[in-house]
Amino acid sequence: MLRKRDVFKSNQPLILSSGNTLHNYDICYETYGTLNQEKNNAILICHALTGSAHAAAIDKESKSKGWWDSIIGPNKAIDTNRFFVICSNVIGSCKGSTGPASIDPRTEKIYKTNFPIITITDMVNAQYELIKHLEIPCLYAVIGGSMGGMQALSWSIKFPKHVNRCAAIACTSQISPQALSFATVGRYSITSDPNWNNGNYNETNPPLKGLATARMIGHITYLSQESMSKKFGRGLQKKADYGYKFKTDFQIESYLEYQGDKFVQSFDANSYLYLSKALSYFDLEKEYKTLSNAFKKTNCSFLIASISSDWLYPAENSQKMAKTLMKLNKDVTYCNIESPHGHDGFLIESEKLSNIIKPYLER
Amino acid sequence: MLRKRDVFKSNQPLILSSGNTLHNYDICYETYGTLNQEKNNAILICHALTGSAHAAAIDKESKSKGWWDSIIGPNKAIDTNRFFVICSNVIGSCKGSTGPASIDPRTEKIYKTNFPIITITDMVNAQYELIKHLEIPCLYAVIGGSMGGMQALSWSIKFPKHVNRCAAIACTSQISPQALSFATVGRYSITSDPNWNNGNYNETNPPLKGLATARMIGHITYLSQESMSKKFGRGLQKKADYGYKFKTDFQIESYLEYQGDKFVQSFDANSYLYLSKALSYFDLEKEYKTLSNAFKKTNCSFLIASISSDWLYPAENSQKMAKTLMKLNKDVTYCNIESPHGHDGFLIESEKLSNIIKPYLER
Repeated sequence: MLRKRDVFKSNQPLILSSGNTLHNYDICYETYGTLNQEKNNAILICHALTGSAHAAAIDKESKSKGWWDSIIGPNKAIDTNRFFVICSNVIGSCKGSTGPASIDPRTEKIYKTNFPIITITDMVNAQYELIKHLEIPCLYAVIGGSMGGMQALSWSIKFPKHVNRCAAIACTSQISPQALSFATVGRYSITSDPNWNNGNYNETNPPLKGLATARMIGHITYLSQESMSKKFGRGLQKKADYGYKFKTDFQIESYLEYQGDKFVQSFDANSYLYLSKALSYFDLEKEYKTLSNAFKKTNCSFLIASISSDWLYPAENSQKMAKTLMKLNKDVTYCNIESPHGHDGFLIESEKLSNIIKPYLER
Repeated sequence: MLRKRDVFKSNQPLILSSGNTLHNYDICYETYGTLNQEKNNAILICHALTGSAHAAAIDKESKSKGWWDSIIGPNKAIDTNRFFVICSNVIGSCKGSTGPASIDPRTEKIYKTNFPIITITDMVNAQYELIKHLEIPCLYAVIGGSMGGMQALSWSIKFPKHVNRCAAIACTSQISPQALSFATVGRYSITSDPNWNNGNYNETNPPLKGLATARMIGHITYLSQESMSKKFGRGLQKKADYGYKFKTDFQIESYLEYQGDKFVQSFDANSYLYLSKALSYFDLEKEYKTLSNAFKKTNCSFLIASISSDWLYPAENSQKMAKTLMKLNKDVTYCNIESPHGHDGFLIESEKLSNIIKPYLER
């Protein structure tokens, strides 16, 4: 499989939802497979909150596997023998595209909190510029899970002439008040870490603890009661026996701390704040008054899939979207994937996902 | 109604579950009503994680209402015309009983993390000493919600000859791995606040932000998806209109921050850690091998009540306890209170609670 990693450097300003402008932004992206002569076999993959452009294959340098490698590749559900697959890092992130940890070209200093607030729409508008740059007139499909699903939905709404298929997995048209609460407490834990320093931390002293707390809160919401019980239960750490001390007693405690510590080594705290804000702001029902209004002018077919045990973005909202699309006489397939893995199911249930994505793309 | 507030000062050491000893401890308690001559009308009320001895009536000094005033009082469900009601602050707390913010009599310094780790059993053993001190041979009932319910269950198990009725509301025989996770992340946020300083903070510089984060996480778990949606939805703060700034945008965000800020003004961070640990350790199934073993030697009647929308301590566990008690041929009444208020329902649904507690006490 031909894998390429590149950076699209835009000299054009991007007008943002806030009315602000992002100047000279970069978009880091990877491609897998080859664009055909008709340029009609391109699939855009959109990543989740903390994802990156590295969706498939093993990166030789970091030796890390792409986050959806089980689904994207030769003869896999998203078949790179047939499709030209693109995954771009969202603006606002810290994984290669322009974000708060990038240099502001006007000041030659790191943006930090001078980076403008961005929305899912802004991410998608930037992706559109990348797709234009690649001279692709119309995407065969746009596919994403979680925050990536929000981007996929936005593509179908904002660029109806440029998308043929939209697959939105484990996503929602607006995050619930409960999900919003977890997001806001995560942001609070970062901004109340004294190292955050109003965003002006330096590289040697970032707000690691606040960011780790945010990640740990997030991580709990990505799992399910069932998967946590099966994987960890109330099991104790080896040798620990209700330590009666201030130490890590439980396996789940150790696991969460490990996840927090690992995450902060490769993620920028300000980026997390900006992306979390974008996620919180996303609200098709508010933006278009009704969900029906939002989807009215879409011109593609839809695959809406939820995870049965996902309590962060519960199946009900996906069902609501599917029903709305049906009422509008749009071409929509809905599937509630039976899985104990909670929200993370969209990364774990690759076989079940493949079983619905593959036929959807072959139609 | 006769209300008294007092402190029981024990000169006897309390041997703890850990094998450690607590010396010269105080128990702050309030009583409502009058102990009869037969001394058989006493009801012990057990409070939740952050509760206090002030369960009923309005405190003249602080002007605050007791946390279960809607249920305890003259002619109320727990009728102080008939019963002598006692509510004691648990050891480990910071509301008058000995805890990590108290002076260690041996060193004449504040305990801080030299305070020994305590368990629900230890709290109950200390309460037993108070009841002995009050010369009450047998409690008419012990009643508690949430962590208070755990204490009530422990009373029925540890002191079968000294309890006639046990009402455990919105509680569980062991907190789930998910609830455990939220508790551990709360503790992580406190201990990773640099002001915590291994527990050696001084009064002027406590880890307020870490404690506020822990409280906010807890608060989300005390509400339900439904109650949050009804009360706040995705509503914005007045004048805020997707601020596109790093400020508090959403009503629920503002509410949680307010709850966090308010809480830290009156709660000690080390106390929170100790009580949260006690909650996490509580596990009747581990301690007695099986739930059936735990309840085998109990000698009282039981009222087990859950809240239908409580996802922190789901109804399933209360049902499991009720079934286990039935199989053991114990006298048990179970009720799942229909309520949208989540775990907090045990503080809010006073009418529904009164409707089951009153007849239970009159039987």
